[in-house]
Amino acid sequence: MIGQSVAQSAGQEGIAVHGMPLEVVEVMARQQDAWNHGDLVGFMDGYWKSDSLVFVGSTGLTAGHQATLARYQRSYPNQEAMGTLTFTNIAWQFLGAESGWLVGRWALDKSTGDDAQGMYTLLWRVVEGRWVIVADHSS
Amino acid sequence: MIGQSVAQSAGQEGIAVHGMPLEVVEVMARQQDAWNHGDLVGFMDGYWKSDSLVFVGSTGLTAGHQATLARYQRSYPNQEAMGTLTFTNIAWQFLGAESGWLVGRWALDKSTGDDAQGMYTLLWRVVEGRWVIVADHSS
Repeated sequence: MIGQSVAQSAGQEGIAVHGMPLEVVEVMARQQDAWNHGDLVGFMDGYWKSDSLVFVGSTGLTAGHQATLARYQRSYPNQEAMGTLTFTNIAWQFLGAESGWLVGRWALDKSTGDDAQGMYTLLWRVVEGRWVIVADHSS
Repeated sequence: MIGQSVAQSAGQEGIAVHGMPLEVVEVMARQQDAWNHGDLVGFMDGYWKSDSLVFVGSTGLTAGHQATLARYQRSYPNQEAMGTLTFTNIAWQFLGAESGWLVGRWALDKSTGDDAQGMYTLLWRVVEGRWVIVADHSS
């Protein structure tokens, strides 16, 4: 699937941007869907399953898949806290054939009214034949 | 200079981390020095001089060298607002021979007491023989 061109299909609006591999589009569509079903473990499936995964927020760095999942679980203890996630990608850049950098905007609509939004930059790599997020800076 | 190993010298403490090219260390040391002399144009010398430069903050994306400089000038109108900048790098990853990703922490000590700090992730590339920042996410 690597390097395949962009496809637009149901649930992928706002995710597919110019040059982005189809597999990355699909991973993010599945992440959005998992989040919106209250499934943080499924959401985390888009991330590298490694202790070397890096998650950066304004307060610091979290290292590793398990610690990043635990951070999400603390921040979003239930589906109400999670709200409805929308990814809106802005630009994809390839960094070689098997690596890429993505910038976009996240938004959480919450029934509780405390909507939230911000930006992300994601570093993607092909690991064992799959595109995965190896580093995420969300703010 | 590309791919040269890390050197530690005066003014580079906290900047040099494992695997980081010496030239990147030097660029960041010069950026820190320029900032601390109130020189935003000099600080911006570490960034790609291109309309394709990307600066991401939690409120959105700024595209291009000129617009990014203007953003800094608005946010930091004088040396008092700029304070004293310290970069503390955490990890460098090569993404091929001429591209790399850096995560670190910035801190501004201000005489006015409203110190500030946060994280950055920088995408670096060799452009026309020089390592420059092509994308900056600061939060």
